[in-house]
Amino acid sequence: MFRSEILAERMHDVIEAARAIVNEARISLQERGLELKAINSASVAMVSLRIDASAFELYQVTPGEIGIDLVRLEDALSSAGKSELVKMELLEDERKLKIRIGSLSYTLGLIDPGTLQREPKIPELDLPASVTIPGAELRRAIKASELVSDHVVLGVRDDVFYMDARGDVDTLSFTMPSSELLDMKPGEARSMFSLEYLSAMSRVFGRAPAVKLEIGIDYPLQISFWLNEAHVSYLLAPRIEEE
Amino acid sequence: MFRSEILAERMHDVIEAARAIVNEARISLQERGLELKAINSASVAMVSLRIDASAFELYQVTPGEIGIDLVRLEDALSSAGKSELVKMELLEDERKLKIRIGSLSYTLGLIDPGTLQREPKIPELDLPASVTIPGAELRRAIKASELVSDHVVLGVRDDVFYMDARGDVDTLSFTMPSSELLDMKPGEARSMFSLEYLSAMSRVFGRAPAVKLEIGIDYPLQISFWLNEAHVSYLLAPRIEEE
Amino acid sequence: MFRSEILAERMHDVIEAARAIVNEARISLQERGLELKAINSASVAMVSLRIDASAFELYQVTPGEIGIDLVRLEDALSSAGKSELVKMELLEDERKLKIRIGSLSYTLGLIDPGTLQREPKIPELDLPASVTIPGAELRRAIKASELVSDHVVLGVRDDVFYMDARGDVDTLSFTMPSSELLDMKPGEARSMFSLEYLSAMSRVFGRAPAVKLEIGIDYPLQISFWLNEAHVSYLLAPRIEEE
Repeated sequence: MFRSEILAERMHDVIEAARAIVNEARISLQERGLELKAINSASVAMVSLRIDASAFELYQVTPGEIGIDLVRLEDALSSAGKSELVKMELLEDERKLKIRIGSLSYTLGLIDPGTLQREPKIPELDLPASVTIPGAELRRAIKASELVSDHVVLGVRDDVFYMDARGDVDTLSFTMPSSELLDMKPGEARSMFSLEYLSAMSRVFGRAPAVKLEIGIDYPLQISFWLNEAHVSYLLAPRIEEE
Repeated sequence: MFRSEILAERMHDVIEAARAIVNEARISLQERGLELKAINSASVAMVSLRIDASAFELYQVTPGEIGIDLVRLEDALSSAGKSELVKMELLEDERKLKIRIGSLSYTLGLIDPGTLQREPKIPELDLPASVTIPGAELRRAIKASELVSDHVVLGVRDDVFYMDARGDVDTLSFTMPSSELLDMKPGEARSMFSLEYLSAMSRVFGRAPAVKLEIGIDYPLQISFWLNEAHVSYLLAPRIEEE
Repeated sequence: MFRSEILAERMHDVIEAARAIVNEARISLQERGLELKAINSASVAMVSLRIDASAFELYQVTPGEIGIDLVRLEDALSSAGKSELVKMELLEDERKLKIRIGSLSYTLGLIDPGTLQREPKIPELDLPASVTIPGAELRRAIKASELVSDHVVLGVRDDVFYMDARGDVDTLSFTMPSSELLDMKPGEARSMFSLEYLSAMSRVFGRAPAVKLEIGIDYPLQISFWLNEAHVSYLLAPRIEEE
């Protein structure tokens, strides 16, 4: 059983955050809220997100799991104004999700969770350095990096967070000392990442007031942030540096 | 003889309403105003519109008929700001229409009306049910329907107006009880229509405060509304339902 | 040596004005400011522009010349907000230009000026007629002309400036008497120009409050204007009229 009511923009945040990584996913319906964990088909990027029951205007659930096409769900939500109420109800017998927005009523066919990828085990990493930075600044640096390269090095050096992109001719570097960061745990860190994934993720976290990056040495990058009422965490595998 | 002055947005409304159906048309120049009746090449959708002489700042005419390329006329009007005055004058001998907008002066070649389709006879239908609804609501329902199907069923059942779209997996329904409609004439009605035409029309009537739908059983749909000073009426043939 | 600081929008104006004509250019670094002269590859359009040292917040230079890819420079500037400060510094030994925008730092590879076209000699023309007109009006007339043709005649006749575009069927003319122009030097003038170039230039001068056109008889057109702190002058070769 699942019945809920939530502001459209809150639900939209959750779906958009997942869509940066996958198009279909299992959603775990828990008493404490909705949870989604997924890994992309190339096994390079993972997302783990949850939205608490308290973010809903109405939230009633018998714990369970559904499989859903996120693209169709996003399409349905696109009919709603930002602060319009979205009412969702699981039609268990028919394997459908009913979505009401004003006078509109969608019935979305669900996907058998057994046919979807298993919920990935998200490793608990203890990364040596971390920085917290406004999402808009990070998005700007990523967009600027895309102008010169398709990959980027993130690191920490002497209390300074840096992002370096190196093209054949031009280079871009972004640096921010700890005094300008929202928060920092200094430590040795330097890893290279594909901009393709960072760019897709930055469209989501660019709207977050604070984004925490946890970085290691040639190690995965952990990106975590709150988007209104949703907590999102991405994990991105490093590229091997050849030079 | 035809000389007129009108606010650009009023003329634009008329042309846009016709363009949902045809690209070229005969315009009838009458003392009471301009009139246009046309049917699309597949003979599925008709438009009948008129704009009264009183909507013009200046209106002088000797009754007659001109044939015009609506796309070129719309292009010319696109140079004008919304509340700019558009001055039109028929150059009979040259078979041209002169259009002045500020310091700009277009001369559009006219089309011999004899080479265009005859003005269609628009049937007078006495449809069993009708509903009146804000254009924006109707447009939203049509856009939502397009996400799941390419056709839609419109009908009235027990004082409720409904629109149903049925895809292979997902469905969308829009329902509005008479208490929320601007007006209703209850009656048995249920017909299926192609969303392709409804979608083009909805770009026009989406801006109308009130749109009247007249519906029958497997019968054409009549859509009528005022767009500022122009009165527009569409007639759309039903699709035959196979199920 | 070259070190400077300037508001992003001022630098953007200069680059955009040059980009209407060329993608790569020599920039002359002078004590009085930056200068750029270039001719397009078809030798039809020339640009000559300068931005005075006084338009910069900081300007330090040893006179010299650099070759630069304007597209990459424009890309780098696109990261900056309009009123953000752009800091530029020439790294002579590395043949690079360093550009700082907030926490971002680009290093753009320069082009050996010797491999670029020579700075063209811009002829001093003494054209018989000239008109000065708001850039937005001129841009509107050029956009309207594009709807009917790919070339246009500019001229002056009896104290009236005119622009005529003639398509196969439709025509567009723009006329403005001296009383409505910002300034006029009457004289006999009538030349035809390709709209392709005028259109690209008009995206730039469309934002200028006053654009001066100097016209002759089947002679090049000189277009000059201030864009904030930059002075821009275009020279456009006439098309030969066949009729």
